[in-house]
Amino acid sequence: MKEELKIFYHIFTTTKDAIEKFMNMLDPVIQNATDEHERLYYHHIFEEEEQRLSRLVELIPLISKFENEKGERDFAPTNNEFNRLLQELNLEKFGLHNFVEHLDLALFRFTDEERSAMLNQLREVSYKDYQQVKAMLIDINKRFDNDYVDPSDHHDHDHDHLDRSASVAVPAIASAKYKKGFTVGSLI
Amino acid sequence: MKEELKIFYHIFTTTKDAIEKFMNMLDPVIQNATDEHERLYYHHIFEEEEQRLSRLVELIPLISKFENEKGERDFAPTNNEFNRLLQELNLEKFGLHNFVEHLDLALFRFTDEERSAMLNQLREVSYKDYQQVKAMLIDINKRFDNDYVDPSDHHDHDHDHLDRSASVAVPAIASAKYKKGFTVGSLI
Repeated sequence: MKEELKIFYHIFTTTKDAIEKFMNMLDPVIQNATDEHERLYYHHIFEEEEQRLSRLVELIPLISKFENEKGERDFAPTNNEFNRLLQELNLEKFGLHNFVEHLDLALFRFTDEERSAMLNQLREVSYKDYQQVKAMLIDINKRFDNDYVDPSDHHDHDHDHLDRSASVAVPAIASAKYKKGFTVGSLI
Repeated sequence: MKEELKIFYHIFTTTKDAIEKFMNMLDPVIQNATDEHERLYYHHIFEEEEQRLSRLVELIPLISKFENEKGERDFAPTNNEFNRLLQELNLEKFGLHNFVEHLDLALFRFTDEERSAMLNQLREVSYKDYQQVKAMLIDINKRFDNDYVDPSDHHDHDHDHLDRSASVAVPAIASAKYKKGFTVGSLI
């Protein structure tokens, strides 16, 4: 678990910097938006990333605390703080996933060399980190077998053509009703 | 607290239905998107709401549990489950906020009578509910004074021209650097 915490720490510290770069890129776009729709659109994405940043400001020291001050016996489902850590990590898995999509959306619009190079670089790292966080959490949740079923795991599957078999816990809402017509992997 | 839980239960049950209506509206839009950017855009919003829906599927029974099975002595910062409840409610305050913006963005595009009527109706209820959740949480967090400072409270202020004085805990990132030029209330 210590080794995994080290990786989580690295990933979420990296993505925190990435958010700041992305926000700095969006700031002048929002200032100079040519219409209200464009302004609201980028401001909305900006705010969602800002919310994520605020959560990471809390999460990163919690990871650090478990990495540096806690022992293996603290890594147990009977430990409420550990459960909170797992819950937050699961939430930030989706935060990373949504960030990748924010970058993809931005790549459609900011095609100049400077911005597209930066966005592509952030996108590459974030996508890799998202995949790693996802794989680690599947493993951790299995290992601790603490009756924790991530209710949101099914959201991923459009992006997970490689590990679809690992998908569990599909609530009724994720039925064919909503999913029909989405081609697996087509949005990656 | 019981009275507040009853209101939370009502609000989050209502917004759960609203998400489903919104997703049903978006589904054919995604199917019939004319280009990849448009498809990714609505699919992204769809997924964020789907993630929120999955969290609400967990949160609503938790609210219900505290409303029906717990007594006043359980409403204490020493109770880990109660802290989790407060934390989730704080997260879903932002979920509601982001939903209002998703609806605002959709209102720019779906201007036909049927869809704009539905979106406006969802928007009106969601905005009112967001304001109420926000006010209740400020009050609850104050009352329990459990050293819990919502790190994200500052995200709201563009939408909160009425209660700006209640704003606290502004991290460095929400500085003028990022906020310059946003007119208070202009995005509402």
